[in-house]
Amino acid sequence: MSVDLKDRTVGVIGLGLMGRPMARNLAKAGASLVVHSRSPGPVEELAAEGMSPAASPAEVTARADTVVLMLSDTVAVEAVAAGLMEALRPGHLVIDMGTTAVEPTRRLAEAVRAKGAEWVDAPVSGGTVAAEAGSLTIMAGGSAEAFAKALPLFQVMGQRITHVGDSGAGQVAKMANQVIVALSIGAVAEALALAKAAGVEPAKVRDAIRGGFAESRILDLHGQRMVTGDFTPGGRVVTQIKDLKQAEELAEQSGIQLPALGLSLELFEMLADQGDGGLDHAALYRLFVK
Amino acid sequence: MSVDLKDRTVGVIGLGLMGRPMARNLAKAGASLVVHSRSPGPVEELAAEGMSPAASPAEVTARADTVVLMLSDTVAVEAVAAGLMEALRPGHLVIDMGTTAVEPTRRLAEAVRAKGAEWVDAPVSGGTVAAEAGSLTIMAGGSAEAFAKALPLFQVMGQRITHVGDSGAGQVAKMANQVIVALSIGAVAEALALAKAAGVEPAKVRDAIRGGFAESRILDLHGQRMVTGDFTPGGRVVTQIKDLKQAEELAEQSGIQLPALGLSLELFEMLADQGDGGLDHAALYRLFVK
Repeated sequence: MSVDLKDRTVGVIGLGLMGRPMARNLAKAGASLVVHSRSPGPVEELAAEGMSPAASPAEVTARADTVVLMLSDTVAVEAVAAGLMEALRPGHLVIDMGTTAVEPTRRLAEAVRAKGAEWVDAPVSGGTVAAEAGSLTIMAGGSAEAFAKALPLFQVMGQRITHVGDSGAGQVAKMANQVIVALSIGAVAEALALAKAAGVEPAKVRDAIRGGFAESRILDLHGQRMVTGDFTPGGRVVTQIKDLKQAEELAEQSGIQLPALGLSLELFEMLADQGDGGLDHAALYRLFVK
Repeated sequence: MSVDLKDRTVGVIGLGLMGRPMARNLAKAGASLVVHSRSPGPVEELAAEGMSPAASPAEVTARADTVVLMLSDTVAVEAVAAGLMEALRPGHLVIDMGTTAVEPTRRLAEAVRAKGAEWVDAPVSGGTVAAEAGSLTIMAGGSAEAFAKALPLFQVMGQRITHVGDSGAGQVAKMANQVIVALSIGAVAEALALAKAAGVEPAKVRDAIRGGFAESRILDLHGQRMVTGDFTPGGRVVTQIKDLKQAEELAEQSGIQLPALGLSLELFEMLADQGDGGLDHAALYRLFVK
């Protein structure tokens, strides 16, 4: 896809493992980049590549027409919100591409709109590999107008782009995604542990059942990690716990009980308690295999 | 694949929705078929197509070199075992392609071998569509020699054929498969119910997260059933309960506890208790959506 962002000045706040390649892809498509991060290292790195450094979230916002947030969690988003709101002008577009809780997202979206600016929550899936390749899965929430303004940027950073619904809907989709990932890891872990306990090689079982109804990305990727015992992350157990807590909060706020989600959170917490919080979440397998 | 079964006489016991198309595919590949079923209808149907009817499991066994069992459950397998064992001669091959408990499978395999005959457990996945197309996923347990003798038949009935391990290993793989299917349905059900409760269209969320780490056959097929509310089976809730109980028994016999499996069984039982046992197992979604 050939998207030209020459007329856009895009601010990026948050220059971690995801934010940096995303900023680079925006710059490659012609956008002028204004970048900021809490730690100075990444700012200097991107400045050396020709992007313009900014000293604060307020400065990024003042100098850009579109501000992309790519921060680690809800707390980090709330920490930059004040500076961002202070500099916000009518016509501005704010895009939060991190994974942020739904309630604060909806509040922030409203505050942004009250200033005459626009908001899209657009969390992503696919990790650093997809961020670098510009092939992220992007789940967007916001008005049709705001989504249309954000779309050319999304086309540069991602491949599967869905406008899910109003503000917050992108984050809801991301929560649903995380719930499926966590519970599916649990499904594969218990199934392969059962095979092993019953005296059958888990690797052979995984081979045998692929291509049938059990086929999934999780059986493919995380099943392989269980079979080889290599739990180099990938997605860490502690991150999974954070995501599941956020999903459980959303369930409570939405008035439903999700028993398998609750159990999954307990199991990942047990795993962290035994010292495995830094491993890939596929290490859940360890709870069931002695 | 062009497999010629002209020199084989294959008995098929159990002529339900799976057994009938499997017998037809064996006949098409040149095998002589001897068929038996508890109900006379299917026997007459296949006899009219040129297969040879037999009055009992013992008669099938006496007249065939290979006996394929395609029965509904462990009880049905044990009901034909006596007649089968009585007629069994050295050199005979018995292939159980139904879903049978692991313990009885291992006992039966031993009894068959004690008679100088051979045994392969080879449960399948893919349902009637794959049975008709000859594209079943086949998970086989037995000696290398027995598997080699069964392989030409498998090549006619299936596409993905794996020799998982010794006797019982095929059934263990099938149990693992069922555990993943059941728990993954639970994962998708809770995730889409969360989206709906949070005010976002489940169909849009399903679209948004496909192609990412949440991608699976279950999200594709059963997720679609949840979104449309069409729970025409497919795999029934009562069958799922039977399979999960069998998996839980295997876990107990193997000395491990599988908490998500236990919870999943409870949830499907709640669903059956509220009168939904005859629906597709994707109807689990109904427990969470009011």
